[in-house]
Amino acid sequence: MRKNKKERQELLQQTIRSTPFITDEELAEKFEVSIQTIRLDRLELSIPELRERIKSVAEQTLQDEVKSLPIDEVIGEIVDLNLDEQAISILEIKDEHVFSRNQIARGHHLFAQANSLAVAVIDDELALTAKASIRFSRQVKQGERVVAKAKVMNLDKPKGWTAVAVNSYVSEELVFSGTFEMYRSKQT
Amino acid sequence: MRKNKKERQELLQQTIRSTPFITDEELAEKFEVSIQTIRLDRLELSIPELRERIKSVAEQTLQDEVKSLPIDEVIGEIVDLNLDEQAISILEIKDEHVFSRNQIARGHHLFAQANSLAVAVIDDELALTAKASIRFSRQVKQGERVVAKAKVMNLDKPKGWTAVAVNSYVSEELVFSGTFEMYRSKQT
Repeated sequence: MRKNKKERQELLQQTIRSTPFITDEELAEKFEVSIQTIRLDRLELSIPELRERIKSVAEQTLQDEVKSLPIDEVIGEIVDLNLDEQAISILEIKDEHVFSRNQIARGHHLFAQANSLAVAVIDDELALTAKASIRFSRQVKQGERVVAKAKVMNLDKPKGWTAVAVNSYVSEELVFSGTFEMYRSKQT
Repeated sequence: MRKNKKERQELLQQTIRSTPFITDEELAEKFEVSIQTIRLDRLELSIPELRERIKSVAEQTLQDEVKSLPIDEVIGEIVDLNLDEQAISILEIKDEHVFSRNQIARGHHLFAQANSLAVAVIDDELALTAKASIRFSRQVKQGERVVAKAKVMNLDKPKGWTAVAVNSYVSEELVFSGTFEMYRSKQT
Protein backbone atom coordinates (compact mmCIF):
# COMPACT_ATOMS: atom_id res chain seq x y z
CA MET A 1 0.00 0.00 0.00
CA ARG A 2 1.41 3.42 -0.96
CA LYS A 3 1.88 5.82 1.90
CA ASN A 4 1.74 9.58 1.98
CA LYS A 5 4.97 11.51 1.94
CA LYS A 6 5.26 12.06 5.69
CA GLU A 7 4.64 8.40 6.54
CA ARG A 8 7.00 7.27 3.79
CA GLN A 9 9.81 9.56 4.93
CA GLU A 10 9.50 8.34 8.52
CA LEU A 11 9.55 4.72 7.45
CA LEU A 12 12.44 5.48 5.09
CA GLN A 13 14.52 6.82 7.97
CA GLN A 14 13.73 3.77 10.10
CA THR A 15 14.49 1.39 7.23
CA ILE A 16 17.86 2.97 6.45
CA ARG A 17 18.77 3.02 10.13
CA SER A 18 18.10 -0.71 10.52
CA THR A 19 19.45 -1.79 7.09
CA PRO A 20 22.02 0.85 6.09
CA PHE A 21 23.17 -1.10 3.01
CA ILE A 22 19.80 -0.97 1.23
CA THR A 23 19.92 0.58 -2.26
CA ASP A 24 17.69 3.31 -3.64
CA GLU A 25 16.32 0.69 -6.06
CA GLU A 26 15.29 -1.57 -3.21
CA LEU A 27 13.76 1.35 -1.31
CA ALA A 28 11.80 2.43 -4.38
CA GLU A 29 10.42 -1.09 -4.74
CA LYS A 30 9.61 -1.36 -1.05
CA PHE A 31 7.69 1.92 -0.98
CA GLU A 32 6.24 1.54 -4.47
CA VAL A 33 7.58 4.89 -5.66
CA SER A 34 10.17 5.92 -8.27
CA ILE A 35 13.90 5.95 -7.55
CA GLN A 36 13.79 9.70 -8.17
CA THR A 37 11.28 10.07 -5.30
CA ILE A 38 13.59 8.15 -2.98
CA ARG A 39 16.50 10.40 -3.97
CA LEU A 40 14.44 13.50 -3.25
CA ASP A 41 13.34 12.02 0.09
CA ARG A 42 16.98 11.37 1.00
CA LEU A 43 17.92 14.93 0.02
CA GLU A 44 15.14 16.42 2.14
CA LEU A 45 16.08 14.18 5.08
CA SER A 46 19.83 14.74 4.56
CA ILE A 47 20.49 10.99 4.29
CA PRO A 48 23.67 10.40 2.27
CA GLU A 49 23.75 8.01 -0.69
CA LEU A 50 24.58 4.33 -0.22
CA ARG A 51 28.30 4.62 -0.99
CA GLU A 52 28.73 7.33 1.64
CA ARG A 53 26.71 5.33 4.15
CA ILE A 54 28.93 2.28 3.61
CA LYS A 55 32.04 4.41 4.12
CA SER A 56 30.64 5.96 7.25
CA VAL A 57 29.56 2.60 8.73
CA ALA A 58 33.00 1.23 7.88
CA GLU A 59 34.76 4.10 9.61
CA GLN A 60 32.62 3.77 12.72
CA THR A 61 32.82 0.02 13.08
CA LEU A 62 36.22 -1.03 11.80
CA GLN A 63 37.79 -1.01 15.23
CA ASP A 64 40.16 -3.80 14.37
CA GLU A 65 42.62 -4.20 11.54
CA VAL A 66 42.92 -7.20 9.29
CA LYS A 67 46.06 -9.09 10.32
CA SER A 68 46.09 -12.22 8.25
CA LEU A 69 46.37 -10.60 4.81
CA PRO A 70 46.72 -7.16 3.19
CA ILE A 71 43.30 -5.50 3.11
CA ASP A 72 43.34 -5.17 -0.70
CA GLU A 73 43.52 -8.98 -0.95
CA VAL A 74 40.10 -9.30 0.66
CA ILE A 75 37.46 -9.98 -2.03
CA GLY A 76 34.66 -7.47 -1.40
CA GLU A 77 34.67 -4.40 0.82
CA ILE A 78 34.94 -5.00 4.58
CA VAL A 79 32.43 -2.84 6.46
CA ASP A 80 32.67 -4.38 9.92
CA LEU A 81 35.43 -6.29 11.68
CA ASN A 82 35.98 -7.56 15.21
CA LEU A 83 38.90 -9.96 15.12
CA ASP A 84 38.13 -13.52 16.25
CA GLU A 85 34.46 -12.53 16.56
CA GLN A 86 32.71 -11.40 13.41
CA ALA A 87 33.07 -9.50 10.15
CA ILE A 88 30.90 -8.22 7.30
CA SER A 89 31.82 -7.51 3.68
CA ILE A 90 29.92 -6.36 0.62
CA LEU A 91 30.55 -7.52 -2.96
CA GLU A 92 28.84 -5.89 -5.93
CA ILE A 93 28.24 -8.44 -8.66
CA LYS A 94 29.54 -6.91 -11.90
CA ASP A 95 29.90 -8.32 -15.40
CA GLU A 96 33.29 -9.88 -14.60
CA HIS A 97 31.64 -12.02 -11.92
CA VAL A 98 28.91 -13.64 -14.01
CA PHE A 99 28.49 -16.36 -16.62
CA SER A 100 28.21 -14.59 -19.99
CA ARG A 101 25.31 -16.85 -20.91
CA ASN A 102 22.84 -15.98 -18.20
CA GLN A 103 24.36 -13.17 -16.04
CA ILE A 104 24.30 -15.47 -13.00
CA ALA A 105 27.19 -14.93 -10.56
CA ARG A 106 29.80 -17.68 -10.77
CA GLY A 107 30.02 -19.69 -7.57
CA HIS A 108 33.71 -19.16 -7.04
CA HIS A 109 33.25 -15.40 -6.57
CA LEU A 110 30.76 -15.96 -3.75
CA PHE A 111 33.16 -18.56 -2.37
CA ALA A 112 36.09 -16.10 -2.67
CA GLN A 113 34.20 -13.38 -0.81
CA ALA A 114 33.24 -15.76 2.01
CA ASN A 115 36.63 -17.49 2.21
CA SER A 116 38.64 -14.28 2.26
CA LEU A 117 36.34 -12.88 4.95
CA ALA A 118 36.90 -16.08 6.99
CA VAL A 119 40.66 -15.47 6.62
CA ALA A 120 40.37 -11.75 7.45
CA VAL A 121 38.43 -12.30 10.68
CA ILE A 122 41.25 -14.41 12.17
CA ASP A 123 43.35 -12.54 14.75
CA ASP A 124 46.62 -14.04 13.57
CA GLU A 125 49.19 -13.41 10.85
CA LEU A 126 48.73 -17.00 9.71
CA ALA A 127 45.31 -18.20 8.58
CA LEU A 128 44.91 -21.07 6.15
CA THR A 129 41.72 -22.77 5.03
CA ALA A 130 41.76 -26.52 5.67
CA LYS A 131 38.18 -27.55 4.86
CA ALA A 132 34.94 -25.98 3.80
CA SER A 133 31.38 -27.10 3.41
CA ILE A 134 29.23 -24.72 1.38
CA ARG A 135 25.78 -24.32 -0.10
CA PHE A 136 24.50 -22.02 -2.84
CA SER A 137 20.87 -21.44 -1.92
CA ARG A 138 19.75 -19.09 -4.65
CA GLN A 139 21.22 -17.63 -7.83
CA VAL A 140 22.74 -14.16 -7.67
CA LYS A 141 22.36 -11.89 -10.69
CA GLN A 142 24.56 -9.14 -12.09
CA GLY A 143 23.83 -5.83 -10.31
CA GLU A 144 22.99 -7.42 -6.96
CA ARG A 145 25.03 -6.71 -3.83
CA VAL A 146 26.06 -9.64 -1.66
CA VAL A 147 26.47 -8.96 2.05
CA ALA A 148 28.61 -11.70 3.66
CA LYS A 149 28.54 -12.12 7.43
CA ALA A 150 31.28 -14.15 9.09
CA LYS A 151 31.03 -15.41 12.67
CA VAL A 152 33.78 -17.21 14.54
CA MET A 153 32.14 -20.36 15.94
CA ASN A 154 34.88 -22.37 17.56
CA LEU A 155 38.24 -21.11 18.63
CA ASP A 156 40.87 -23.54 19.83
CA LYS A 157 44.00 -21.41 20.12
CA PRO A 158 46.22 -24.09 21.72
CA LYS A 159 45.45 -26.45 18.83
CA GLY A 160 45.70 -23.63 16.28
CA TRP A 161 42.23 -24.22 14.90
CA THR A 162 39.18 -22.01 14.26
CA ALA A 163 35.80 -22.62 12.60
CA VAL A 164 34.13 -19.69 10.85
CA ALA A 165 30.52 -19.68 9.63
CA VAL A 166 29.75 -17.34 6.73
CA ASN A 167 26.24 -16.49 5.54
CA SER A 168 25.79 -14.27 2.48
CA TYR A 169 22.62 -12.37 1.66
CA VAL A 170 21.09 -10.35 -1.16
CA SER A 171 18.65 -7.95 0.49
CA GLU A 172 17.55 -10.25 3.30
CA GLU A 173 17.58 -13.46 1.29
CA LEU A 174 20.23 -16.09 2.03
CA VAL A 175 22.20 -16.87 -1.16
CA PHE A 176 25.28 -18.68 0.19
CA SER A 177 26.28 -20.35 3.42
CA GLY A 178 29.50 -22.03 4.38
CA THR A 179 31.56 -23.33 7.26
CA PHE A 180 35.31 -22.87 6.99
CA GLU A 181 37.82 -24.72 9.14
CA MET A 182 40.93 -22.59 9.48
CA TYR A 183 44.43 -23.30 10.67
CA ARG A 184 46.29 -20.55 12.55
CA SER A 185 49.45 -20.29 14.65
CA LYS A 186 49.42 -22.44 17.78
CA GLN A 187 49.34 -20.35 20.96
CA THR A 188 50.30 -22.08 24.17
CA MET B 1 70.74 -42.87 -7.02
CA ARG B 2 72.05 -41.31 -10.25
CA LYS B 3 71.75 -43.47 -13.30
CA ASN B 4 73.88 -43.62 -16.40
CA LYS B 5 72.65 -41.88 -19.52
CA LYS B 6 71.11 -44.92 -21.21
CA GLU B 7 69.19 -46.00 -18.10
CA ARG B 8 68.10 -42.42 -17.45
CA GLN B 9 66.82 -41.90 -21.00
CA GLU B 10 64.82 -45.13 -20.88
CA LEU B 11 63.25 -44.21 -17.55
CA LEU B 12 62.66 -40.69 -18.83
CA GLN B 13 60.63 -42.02 -21.75
CA GLN B 14 58.61 -44.27 -19.45
CA THR B 15 58.02 -41.46 -16.99
CA ILE B 16 56.80 -39.02 -19.63
CA ARG B 17 54.58 -41.69 -21.17
CA SER B 18 52.86 -42.40 -17.84
CA THR B 19 52.79 -38.79 -16.57
CA PRO B 20 52.80 -36.57 -19.68
CA PHE B 21 52.28 -33.35 -17.68
CA ILE B 22 55.53 -33.60 -15.72
CA THR B 23 57.83 -30.54 -16.05
CA ASP B 24 61.53 -30.51 -16.92
CA GLU B 25 62.16 -29.18 -13.39
CA GLU B 26 60.41 -32.16 -11.85
CA LEU B 27 62.25 -34.57 -14.13
CA ALA B 28 65.59 -32.98 -13.24
CA GLU B 29 64.83 -33.40 -9.56
CA LYS B 30 63.63 -36.98 -10.02
CA PHE B 31 66.77 -38.03 -11.90
CA GLU B 32 69.14 -35.80 -9.90
CA VAL B 33 70.52 -34.08 -12.99
CA SER B 34 70.37 -30.49 -14.27
CA ILE B 35 67.40 -29.15 -16.24
CA GLN B 36 69.79 -28.64 -19.15
CA THR B 37 70.54 -32.41 -19.14
CA ILE B 38 66.81 -33.18 -19.27
CA ARG B 39 66.39 -30.79 -22.21
CA LEU B 40 69.24 -32.47 -24.08
CA ASP B 41 67.75 -35.90 -23.28
CA ARG B 42 64.41 -34.77 -24.69
CA LEU B 43 66.08 -33.41 -27.81
CA GLU B 44 67.95 -36.67 -28.40
CA LEU B 45 64.77 -38.69 -27.80
CA SER B 46 62.60 -36.29 -29.84
CA ILE B 47 60.23 -35.73 -26.94
CA PRO B 48 58.49 -32.35 -27.31
CA GLU B 49 58.42 -29.81 -24.49
CA LEU B 50 55.62 -29.80 -21.94
CA ARG B 51 53.46 -27.15 -23.64
CA GLU B 52 53.49 -29.15 -26.88
CA ARG B 53 52.74 -32.38 -25.01
CA ILE B 54 49.73 -30.77 -23.32
CA LYS B 55 48.46 -29.54 -26.68
CA SER B 56 48.90 -32.93 -28.26
CA VAL B 57 47.20 -34.77 -25.39
CA ALA B 58 44.36 -32.25 -25.57
CA GLU B 59 43.93 -32.75 -29.32
CA GLN B 60 43.90 -36.53 -28.98
CA THR B 61 41.54 -36.74 -26.06
CA LEU B 62 39.06 -33.87 -26.31
CA GLN B 63 36.42 -35.91 -28.07
CA ASP B 64 33.61 -33.99 -26.49
CA GLU B 65 32.83 -30.32 -26.38
CA VAL B 66 31.99 -28.34 -23.30
CA LYS B 67 28.25 -27.60 -23.38
CA SER B 68 27.46 -25.93 -20.10
CA LEU B 69 29.62 -22.82 -20.56
CA PRO B 70 31.90 -21.13 -23.13
CA ILE B 71 35.30 -22.85 -23.00
CA ASP B 72 37.11 -19.60 -22.13
CA GLU B 73 35.06 -19.40 -18.92
CA VAL B 74 36.67 -22.59 -17.65
CA ILE B 75 39.37 -21.74 -15.09
CA GLY B 76 42.47 -23.68 -16.19
CA GLU B 77 43.13 -25.47 -19.48
CA ILE B 78 40.97 -28.52 -20.23
CA VAL B 79 43.13 -31.38 -21.53
CA ASP B 80 40.62 -34.22 -21.36
CA LEU B 81 36.84 -34.31 -21.51
CA ASN B 82 34.22 -37.03 -21.74
CA LEU B 83 30.87 -35.49 -20.98
CA ASP B 84 29.04 -36.95 -17.97
CA GLU B 85 32.08 -39.14 -17.27
CA GLN B 86 35.33 -37.38 -16.50
CA ALA B 87 37.50 -34.35 -17.29
CA ILE B 88 40.99 -33.05 -16.56
CA SER B 89 42.29 -29.48 -16.46
CA ILE B 90 45.62 -27.86 -15.67
CA LEU B 91 46.11 -24.53 -13.89
CA GLU B 92 49.52 -22.89 -13.61
CA ILE B 93 49.82 -20.96 -10.36
CA LYS B 94 51.07 -17.48 -11.24
CA ASP B 95 51.60 -14.38 -9.14
CA GLU B 96 47.98 -13.28 -9.55
CA HIS B 97 46.85 -16.51 -7.83
CA VAL B 98 48.90 -16.25 -4.63
CA PHE B 99 48.90 -14.32 -1.35
CA SER B 100 51.52 -11.56 -1.72
CA ARG B 101 52.84 -12.39 1.75
CA ASN B 102 53.89 -15.99 1.26
CA GLN B 103 53.34 -16.91 -2.43
CA ILE B 104 50.83 -19.59 -1.38
CA ALA B 105 47.97 -20.10 -3.82
CA ARG B 106 44.69 -18.63 -2.59
CA GLY B 107 42.06 -21.28 -1.94
CA HIS B 108 39.42 -19.74 -4.17
CA HIS B 109 41.55 -20.27 -7.29
CA LEU B 110 41.82 -24.01 -6.59
CA PHE B 111 38.11 -23.96 -5.86
CA ALA B 112 37.41 -22.08 -9.12
CA GLN B 113 39.41 -24.59 -11.17
CA ALA B 114 37.61 -27.56 -9.60
CA ASN B 115 34.15 -25.98 -9.67
CA SER B 116 34.38 -24.86 -13.30
CA LEU B 117 35.60 -28.33 -14.28
CA ALA B 118 32.61 -29.84 -12.44
CA VAL B 119 30.37 -27.50 -14.48
CA ALA B 120 32.20 -28.26 -17.75
CA VAL B 121 31.89 -32.06 -17.42
CA ILE B 122 28.08 -31.87 -17.33
CA ASP B 123 26.43 -32.87 -20.60
CA ASP B 124 23.78 -30.20 -20.41
CA GLU B 125 23.44 -26.52 -21.23
CA LEU B 126 22.36 -25.90 -17.65
CA ALA B 127 24.69 -26.80 -14.79
CA LEU B 128 24.51 -25.01 -11.45
CA THR B 129 26.41 -25.82 -8.28
CA ALA B 130 24.10 -26.44 -5.32
CA LYS B 131 26.51 -27.68 -2.64
CA ALA B 132 30.17 -28.47 -2.22
CA SER B 133 32.32 -30.06 0.40
CA ILE B 134 36.03 -29.42 -0.06
CA ARG B 135 39.39 -29.99 1.57
CA PHE B 136 42.74 -28.27 1.00
CA SER B 137 45.29 -30.97 1.82
CA ARG B 138 48.54 -29.19 1.13
CA GLN B 139 49.63 -25.67 0.24
CA VAL B 140 50.32 -24.89 -3.42
CA LYS B 141 53.12 -22.47 -4.24
CA GLN B 142 53.58 -20.04 -7.11
CA GLY B 143 55.11 -21.83 -10.13
CA GLU B 144 53.40 -25.16 -9.44
CA ARG B 145 50.93 -26.71 -11.89
CA VAL B 146 47.68 -28.07 -10.51
CA VAL B 147 46.11 -30.98 -12.40
CA ALA B 148 42.42 -31.29 -11.51
CA LYS B 149 40.58 -34.54 -12.27
CA ALA B 150 36.80 -34.54 -12.24
CA LYS B 151 34.76 -37.74 -12.15
CA VAL B 152 30.98 -37.93 -12.41
CA MET B 153 29.89 -40.08 -9.47
CA ASN B 154 26.12 -40.05 -9.47
CA LEU B 155 23.89 -39.12 -12.30
CA ASP B 156 20.19 -38.81 -11.77
CA LYS B 157 18.91 -37.33 -15.02
CA PRO B 158 15.18 -37.59 -14.22
CA LYS B 159 15.75 -35.64 -11.01
CA GLY B 160 18.18 -33.26 -12.72
CA TRP B 161 20.97 -33.94 -10.27
CA THR B 162 24.63 -34.97 -10.61
CA ALA B 163 27.48 -35.36 -8.11
CA VAL B 164 31.00 -34.69 -9.35
CA ALA B 165 34.17 -35.56 -7.39
CA VAL B 166 37.24 -33.46 -8.17
CA ASN B 167 40.76 -34.28 -6.98
CA SER B 168 43.61 -31.87 -7.74
CA TYR B 169 47.27 -32.82 -7.72
CA VAL B 170 50.69 -31.17 -7.90
CA SER B 171 53.03 -33.80 -9.32
CA GLU B 172 51.37 -36.83 -7.74
CA GLU B 173 50.51 -35.20 -4.44
CA LEU B 174 46.87 -34.49 -3.61
CA VAL B 175 46.41 -30.77 -2.87
CA PHE B 176 42.63 -30.34 -3.08
CA SER B 177 39.60 -32.58 -3.09
CA GLY B 178 35.96 -31.74 -3.37
CA THR B 179 32.51 -33.12 -4.05
CA PHE B 180 30.15 -30.88 -5.99
CA GLU B 181 26.41 -31.43 -6.17
CA MET B 182 25.16 -30.00 -9.43
CA TYR B 183 21.70 -29.17 -10.74
CA ARG B 184 20.99 -29.71 -14.43
CA SER B 185 17.94 -29.80 -16.66
CA LYS B 186 15.45 -32.51 -15.80
CA GLN B 187 15.23 -35.16 -18.53
CA THR B 188 12.26 -37.49 -18.43
